[in-house]
Amino acid sequence: MVTVPTFLLDKTRCRANIANMVARAKAAQVILRPHFKTHQSIEVGRWFREQGVKQITVSSLRMAEYFAGDGWTDITVAFPTNILEIARIKALSAQIQLGLVVESAATAQFLGAHLTDPVNTWIKIDAGYGRTGVPVQDLAKIDALLHEIDQVPNLVARGFLAHAGHSYSSHGQEEITAVHKAHTLALYDLHQHYTSRPELNISTGDTPTCSTQTDFGPATEIRPGNFTFYDLVQAQIGSCSIEQIATAVACPVVAIHQDRNQAIIYGGGVHFSKDSFIHPDYGRCYGLIVSGGPDGWREPIANVYLGKLSQEHGTVIAPPSFIQRLAVGDILTILPAHSCMTANLYTSYQLTSGERIGRFSLQQNEST
Amino acid sequence: MVTVPTFLLDKTRCRANIANMVARAKAAQVILRPHFKTHQSIEVGRWFREQGVKQITVSSLRMAEYFAGDGWTDITVAFPTNILEIARIKALSAQIQLGLVVESAATAQFLGAHLTDPVNTWIKIDAGYGRTGVPVQDLAKIDALLHEIDQVPNLVARGFLAHAGHSYSSHGQEEITAVHKAHTLALYDLHQHYTSRPELNISTGDTPTCSTQTDFGPATEIRPGNFTFYDLVQAQIGSCSIEQIATAVACPVVAIHQDRNQAIIYGGGVHFSKDSFIHPDYGRCYGLIVSGGPDGWREPIANVYLGKLSQEHGTVIAPPSFIQRLAVGDILTILPAHSCMTANLYTSYQLTSGERIGRFSLQQNEST
Repeated sequence: MVTVPTFLLDKTRCRANIANMVARAKAAQVILRPHFKTHQSIEVGRWFREQGVKQITVSSLRMAEYFAGDGWTDITVAFPTNILEIARIKALSAQIQLGLVVESAATAQFLGAHLTDPVNTWIKIDAGYGRTGVPVQDLAKIDALLHEIDQVPNLVARGFLAHAGHSYSSHGQEEITAVHKAHTLALYDLHQHYTSRPELNISTGDTPTCSTQTDFGPATEIRPGNFTFYDLVQAQIGSCSIEQIATAVACPVVAIHQDRNQAIIYGGGVHFSKDSFIHPDYGRCYGLIVSGGPDGWREPIANVYLGKLSQEHGTVIAPPSFIQRLAVGDILTILPAHSCMTANLYTSYQLTSGERIGRFSLQQNEST
Repeated sequence: MVTVPTFLLDKTRCRANIANMVARAKAAQVILRPHFKTHQSIEVGRWFREQGVKQITVSSLRMAEYFAGDGWTDITVAFPTNILEIARIKALSAQIQLGLVVESAATAQFLGAHLTDPVNTWIKIDAGYGRTGVPVQDLAKIDALLHEIDQVPNLVARGFLAHAGHSYSSHGQEEITAVHKAHTLALYDLHQHYTSRPELNISTGDTPTCSTQTDFGPATEIRPGNFTFYDLVQAQIGSCSIEQIATAVACPVVAIHQDRNQAIIYGGGVHFSKDSFIHPDYGRCYGLIVSGGPDGWREPIANVYLGKLSQEHGTVIAPPSFIQRLAVGDILTILPAHSCMTANLYTSYQLTSGERIGRFSLQQNEST
């Protein structure tokens, strides 16, 4: 029974999202190495495994350890290697096929001096997003880094890893396609440069492009993550329909203000995160209230949305007809703006079937 | 040793913040009932107890249970009562002096039908913030609600609870003072109306007003919380100096981009929250990098700040002279924008003395 803010997961929708991405990767003839940072759940990981997925991506070494504990044996940590975790890197690389991301000679040399087992090594490439990586056009720098890696027997060069994170700024499929085309074109140049090294792969893929594009050019694997759950931001980008969103947060109504057409829910920034988006009709929006409830939700209710958040309070804005029917103690079910950040605030998910499943907890993420 | 993003707490600064607020409350002749939602730590709570604090505020029933477990016996849950938690409300009210906030007849009647022990009951008053509560000028509605409460033997009317949350929009002490004056004036009218009920108290107080004001008018208790840690948002509001900020996050450097004067840290939205503020020189800012480190930090380094955050990555923007001295594997110590939201992402704090202390964890917050 829901008595406090509860993260809901619709297993049917989630499994359909997984099946859809498995089929898309197959059709595009690329390996699907899904990013598990969105769900961070052993149980959800098993739904991927049931559909034939064998290789995964995570965003921290601790997360890699968590999934290795459930039998995953080929895991890429798609984050610049944190050399301070070298002891744990060594331990994990002795157990599984660990993939690391390197973007500097300093990191390659450090790993060379410490590793005792081989790791799959990916050079981080910046193909336009501008966050991390060697600029894709700087082939001399990429050559030099590859040379450093080739010097280290335990660094097995696997190829180049890129992330078109700027696809998240798209509105609609046309804009996603434009980002994807420029990104793919840049990867072709890289591919051409290394025709003499056919063992080097190109890994790319974010949820907007992987959900809408069919040709990944020279890329041999894709790493989308958010598609597992999707969310309102992805629906606005054009990656999914509202019906594909597999997660929601159930929140108790604690106060009703008919005079200003608002209700206050127990559900704030610590239950949703402060991520939001600009809705064309509502403006700043942290979530949409749907019909149905924790046992299964349906479509958004027109003009009913989460318009403000403080630490524990959420303000739901709605028409008088909705507010008048509401009572203190009712549960509202709310699609979140950004499911990755929202899921991160829970240590378990409640399935719409009533069962509860665990996830990687913040505690596992801390220094020990 | 810090190897992953770590929440740091400077016990000396924190205890000084507590001592300062204890002294301010004493000078103003009001009871200090500090809000524990910022720190959510039994150990930090004990530092308050050592300074004579006996009454506390929390923002959820689960948090009240957590502190009751460490011997706190007078706890107000300053959040509209969530009637779905009635079983736990009953259990806790049998153990301690539990304070609840009521803002509707429906909630008062529900509690009347279920409670088996007395609870201290506070009517939530909206004195201008506009989030929850009965509007302070609507004396007829307040009278009616008080009448409902008076009908229920287990609801012991303790008075009125207000929160001037709009003080957070202030810039500088003059603006805080203006908000405080209007707020206090509204409370005087309420106080006048109930001179025949001297047992009714007025509880108010947020960090900006409690940190700067000396006269709380008719209020008999104050409930600030954030002052325990303070943060950059409070420094910008004018509640504290940068030196009073008692928390920081230590993050490993994982990539350095000299070409664009940026460094990438292991430290993203899941380690800081997405709360930010607009710095007069830097624009959007998620944190300021300070000199010193996890064993004790000093002042912010000029022009070095956290300018972007994604899920696990943070982008530090800095002058060339700073970036050139930086190496992968260095630790940067960063004052957060909003300490309440940042602290919520950890299950323990590392003291600058090296010791580690626990806090209320997300897991304790979930439906069971």
